[in-house]
Amino acid sequence: MSNYLITGTSKGLGLCLVKELLKRPASSVGLIFATTRSAPTPALQKAIDESSGRVVNIIVDPTDLESLRAALPVVEKRLGDAGLDVLINNVGTGPFANGIKNMYASVLSGGKKKTVLTQEYTDYDHLPNRDNLADVFNVNVMSVQNVTTAFLPLLEKGERKKVVNMSTTVSSFAYQDVFVRLPAPAYKITKAALNMLTLQWGMEYRDKGFTIFGVSPGWCKTDMGGEGANLEPEQGAEAAMKVIDAAGKEEVGRMVNIRLEGFEDGPGDRYQGGVVPW
Amino acid sequence: MSNYLITGTSKGLGLCLVKELLKRPASSVGLIFATTRSAPTPALQKAIDESSGRVVNIIVDPTDLESLRAALPVVEKRLGDAGLDVLINNVGTGPFANGIKNMYASVLSGGKKKTVLTQEYTDYDHLPNRDNLADVFNVNVMSVQNVTTAFLPLLEKGERKKVVNMSTTVSSFAYQDVFVRLPAPAYKITKAALNMLTLQWGMEYRDKGFTIFGVSPGWCKTDMGGEGANLEPEQGAEAAMKVIDAAGKEEVGRMVNIRLEGFEDGPGDRYQGGVVPW
Ligand SMILES: NC(=O)c1ccc[n+]([C@@H]2O[C@H](COP(=O)([O-])OP(=O)(O)OC[C@H]3O[C@@H](n4cnc5c(N)ncnc54)[C@H](OP(=O)(O)O)[C@@H]3O)[C@@H](O)[C@H]2O)c1
Ligand SMILES: NC(=O)c1ccc[n+]([C@@H]2O[C@H](COP(=O)([O-])OP(=O)(O)OC[C@H]3O[C@@H](n4cnc5c(N)ncnc54)[C@H](OP(=O)(O)O)[C@@H]3O)[C@@H](O)[C@H]2O)c1
Repeated sequence: MSNYLITGTSKGLGLCLVKELLKRPASSVGLIFATTRSAPTPALQKAIDESSGRVVNIIVDPTDLESLRAALPVVEKRLGDAGLDVLINNVGTGPFANGIKNMYASVLSGGKKKTVLTQEYTDYDHLPNRDNLADVFNVNVMSVQNVTTAFLPLLEKGERKKVVNMSTTVSSFAYQDVFVRLPAPAYKITKAALNMLTLQWGMEYRDKGFTIFGVSPGWCKTDMGGEGANLEPEQGAEAAMKVIDAAGKEEVGRMVNIRLEGFEDGPGDRYQGGVVPW
Repeated sequence: MSNYLITGTSKGLGLCLVKELLKRPASSVGLIFATTRSAPTPALQKAIDESSGRVVNIIVDPTDLESLRAALPVVEKRLGDAGLDVLINNVGTGPFANGIKNMYASVLSGGKKKTVLTQEYTDYDHLPNRDNLADVFNVNVMSVQNVTTAFLPLLEKGERKKVVNMSTTVSSFAYQDVFVRLPAPAYKITKAALNMLTLQWGMEYRDKGFTIFGVSPGWCKTDMGGEGANLEPEQGAEAAMKVIDAAGKEEVGRMVNIRLEGFEDGPGDRYQGGVVPW
């Protein structure tokens, strides 16, 4: 039986990861600590109410280490003698430059789903907005550093010692030619930093029984992914959880892609599993 | 004739880059704007005094966009009708975790220079120090973003339109197995972010005649590199300047290694030129 902690669960993939785990029997999934920055949204509250006490909401600001340290004894108390088995660092933000939204849409073309560009980017949209680069770093990188640091003592008590950092194929250097049109430079830059952070932590803790790695959950219809995405967040969460279940020593420090049949086409659509090239 | 702006020139590689350019005739190198955060050090002052007015000191805080904007008209006035041809974003910081210093030393072994580990790292030294990760990001990434943004109008007026971001092979994902023992995680993480920033800017400006790329100057005896490094900063600066001279469309967005004969051995010693794998 494994205990989980997932950050950023009020909506999107974080919420779906909670619901995905709730499908499993209590013999397999014990407690699910679901962090949010403010009081649970109705959707999360529903999951809590239907969880027979398995989902425990924890209100923290993941970018603030002190707030996390304050939450530690609360989680510790609920766990009793047990530890945390899996930490999923899900929190993330990916604003587009210059306020662009919904650049892509899925359309049917010859009976097949195809992704098309609905809006041209303008000059300089690829440049990180100096006003948001530091903020995005704080959310996408510092929160992972803080949360992992804060909950490390409980992970050390856990049996599985998995730490999963939600990343994205758009932060792969190798894929930049493909993702050049996505005007989210601060996102790409900070997730590249996150990938290196994951690798540092992964290498450091490999010999201590930890499996610390990244997952790319696919392009999902969330507030971040937008309506044009090709996956429902439930699909992304289910596929991501399969990756999390299966990951072992081989995946330490790497970013692992989800595997989903029928999604072999297009830039964000290649869900063939395996390690994403840097 | 080219005009240069180099950041962080009070010491180390920045200072040596200024001195390297001064070796060239005025017909090839015009003005060299040498930024520092405070009044010139004696070493920089000497270079200024001996430069026949070619080296112009500019006092700015590269992490502060307003300070850079204030410096713009000063640089503009000195340039007259000309633009900036080459911007070298040299500022950087690379603290070791947990106060470790001088982990490596160069020794002679069988008549050949060899790098040895002089101090074992302790547990957790590879983990970014949560207290300095954000600060290091501010210096290594935000300064490049700010300086490039601020001086872009003058670069657009320049003929060569080169922007060079000083990076390092230790931020390459592909080399992490080799550099695992270097306990400078915040450095690796933020330089990986810088590499992605370089790639974003590089792609965005390629079609506008710009060549924006990174250079790894080799492991040099500076305050950052330490005494155990295998190159004098003058060697690193000279080799880096050769890379800068030669870089063209092919190098856009990439990190280019220096080329130095006789340095084929050891982790930081492979100076064989070419593009560093991500
Ligand atoms: N959607 C995609 O297509 C996609 C693709 C690849 C990777 N991902 C990654 O998957 C993760 C979840 O993304 P999502 O699509 O579910 O996004 P989302 O619907 O926008 O949700 C993001 C979550 O992150 C937290 N968050 C957002 N801004 C924050 C801030 N400023 N400070 C602190 N926390 C903040 C929120 O947590 P609270 O609940 O605490 O408010 C929110 O629940 C992210 O790491 C993202 O990069 C998503
Ligand atoms: N030395 C090596 O082995 C090596 C190897 C690979 C890459 N590099 C890169 O080469 C560049 C120069 O390094 P170096 O070895 O010459 O280092 P250094 O001797 O420590 O000098 C670094 C320069 O960066 C500026 N700087 C340092 N901390 C700063 C801060 N907190 N805020 C603003 N500016 C700050 C200073 O500029 P001011 O003059 O304005 O005070 C200083 O002159 C760096 O980007 C470094 O990452 C060095």
